Amino acid sequence: MLKTERMDRVRAALRAQGLTQMIVCDPKSVWYLTGVAVEPYERLLALYLPTEGEPVLFLNRLFNVPEPPCRTVWHTDTDKPVAQIAEVVDAGRPLGIDKEWPAKFLIPLMETHPGMQVVLSSDCVDDCRACKDAEEQTLMREASRINDAVNEAAKHYIKAGMTEREVAEFIDAQYRAHGCEGPSFTTIVSFGANAADPHHEPDDTVLKEGDCVLFDMGCVKSRYCSDMTRTWFCGQPTEKQAAVHDLVRRANEAAEALIKPGVRLCELDAAARDLITEAGYGAYFNHRLGHFIGQTDHEKGDVSSANTAVARPGMIFSIEPGVYLPGEFGVRVEDLVLVTETGCEVLNRNDKHWDVVGL
Amino acid sequence: MLKTERMDRVRAALRAQGLTQMIVCDPKSVWYLTGVAVEPYERLLALYLPTEGEPVLFLNRLFNVPEPPCRTVWHTDTDKPVAQIAEVVDAGRPLGIDKEWPAKFLIPLMETHPGMQVVLSSDCVDDCRACKDAEEQTLMREASRINDAVNEAAKHYIKAGMTEREVAEFIDAQYRAHGCEGPSFTTIVSFGANAADPHHEPDDTVLKEGDCVLFDMGCVKSRYCSDMTRTWFCGQPTEKQAAVHDLVRRANEAAEALIKPGVRLCELDAAARDLITEAGYGAYFNHRLGHFIGQTDHEKGDVSSANTAVARPGMIFSIEPGVYLPGEFGVRVEDLVLVTETGCEVLNRNDKHWDVVGL
Repeated sequence: MLKTERMDRVRAALRAQGLTQMIVCDPKSVWYLTGVAVEPYERLLALYLPTEGEPVLFLNRLFNVPEPPCRTVWHTDTDKPVAQIAEVVDAGRPLGIDKEWPAKFLIPLMETHPGMQVVLSSDCVDDCRACKDAEEQTLMREASRINDAVNEAAKHYIKAGMTEREVAEFIDAQYRAHGCEGPSFTTIVSFGANAADPHHEPDDTVLKEGDCVLFDMGCVKSRYCSDMTRTWFCGQPTEKQAAVHDLVRRANEAAEALIKPGVRLCELDAAARDLITEAGYGAYFNHRLGHFIGQTDHEKGDVSSANTAVARPGMIFSIEPGVYLPGEFGVRVEDLVLVTETGCEVLNRNDKHWDVVGL
Repeated sequence: MLKTERMDRVRAALRAQGLTQMIVCDPKSVWYLTGVAVEPYERLLALYLPTEGEPVLFLNRLFNVPEPPCRTVWHTDTDKPVAQIAEVVDAGRPLGIDKEWPAKFLIPLMETHPGMQVVLSSDCVDDCRACKDAEEQTLMREASRINDAVNEAAKHYIKAGMTEREVAEFIDAQYRAHGCEGPSFTTIVSFGANAADPHHEPDDTVLKEGDCVLFDMGCVKSRYCSDMTRTWFCGQPTEKQAAVHDLVRRANEAAEALIKPGVRLCELDAAARDLITEAGYGAYFNHRLGHFIGQTDHEKGDVSSANTAVARPGMIFSIEPGVYLPGEFGVRVEDLVLVTETGCEVLNRNDKHWDVVGL
């Protein structure tokens, strides 16, 4: 079923950018606007969205879409779907292009209409997607509720002697038991010095006393994602470990305390980063404070020093400061937050302080 | 370590296309040429490859690449990496572009150099990748050897009353037990009428007597993929089920019998399709005969009526005819084949005839 309210918000954004037409290709955006759920892999999936007139879907016959909700142009693996799109677009006007559209489709389309101006315009869709409507907020709360529960279960499950991989498999199985589609990204379980790599993937490293334990985890439930990080210690932490953990937690809380409509996202990054820098660990917090999230774990938009955009009600993003000490340990504390009319709702409720686990 | 032999083959292909420079962005191609294994997600990863002079890698500081093998330009999340690329390319000459490069990088680069011609050129890399060298052939054989073993184990594991999801989880766990990185695509286990959707994903459907059972499965081992399909029946098949299965298997065998250097890939598709069409099921074989495979399950290149390219030694692709009868059942029989100097080596050894399973 066409989501006409969402579509009208995108059309208004296109007009505001001076555009009359756009190619949407991100499968999540196509679903968001049409309800058509397709994973095209290397094949072409596109929605032509004009500001006036009806949208057109371009679908491969292999996609399982029994009743498309609008005009549809079908192709097979031996057709040339870009030529079909070239016939529908208005080559005399600039064409908005989805940020994810790969060159294999864009370049042949430009070659068919050499004079046509192409303009990156997926902000028109992504800025709508960034502000979750009521239906989406409910789904995001539910995904984070499950994530909290599984995080808590994993905290009690873990024991010295287990491997990172075993614990990650436990977490993934718990998600399935809660009816999730799966993890929203590769579950990160990092022990000891492995936690100093923010993107470490679970391996056969065995948990031993003295290690830090970092879980960065999220699930997909009813198409919407969660994402959280908690860090603990296997045994009493050293003074340095405890101090770094307290610092990172306070950086997380300092940023969350500032969130309300109108605050600039770079101010949130600065609030967390300044605390960490003053404590002498600025060089070890080597990523942005957060990212937007919704149907995918990383959606357009971030909470970084470069983003001067302001928070608006309905936005959901992560607040995840970290300190990574190569060869020693790493700490990250991450929640998802929903910007409300007056402040923010933290979607993760689990305690953020350091704790002793696994013994 | 730079793979200079592979790089020189790509440079020769660029020259043959009249190009002097290219942006490679597919992470598998970057690894293929440089040995740098990075999954950039939404961040920028690019290799600038000129036909003369040294390549340049563009890497985010977050990527874990302690010792890049060539000149590297680093960026952080707050930098503008496209501007860094714009400084390195020769704007006075056409620039080859990877087919996967998303519009979010390509359009800003074109806006920075408005006169610069961009040309789709990933064929120059992909045609090299399509013909596996000896090292790659060994890895592909090993991935298919494991796939055969797990397929056989799952054939014996399955029992009436199990759900598709249970069986898919068994298969995925077996891959991990064999030391694989994981499945090479979402494992397909389809019972009964679900098998009539070629891309059905496992759900809670329960196996019952009279159902067909279709496993389409593959693993990733040491970065290289396998992919195979076998179809059986839970209980004695009906005459129609047995006849359709025999037809599909014969179509698979007819195509494989033709494979040798010089045969056009469309002839293989025709050999299988003609058999199925003559039997009256042409409309129910609604996809191409096969696809290339290597580091990803679907690589550039297919075995379809539209592809008049010829088979060359080292190519590895799937041969997977199918017949899908909506509401009834579906049959697909798929192997991977390696084109040799004189014919072909079928990488899957498991029997292809129909069989009775699950009772």
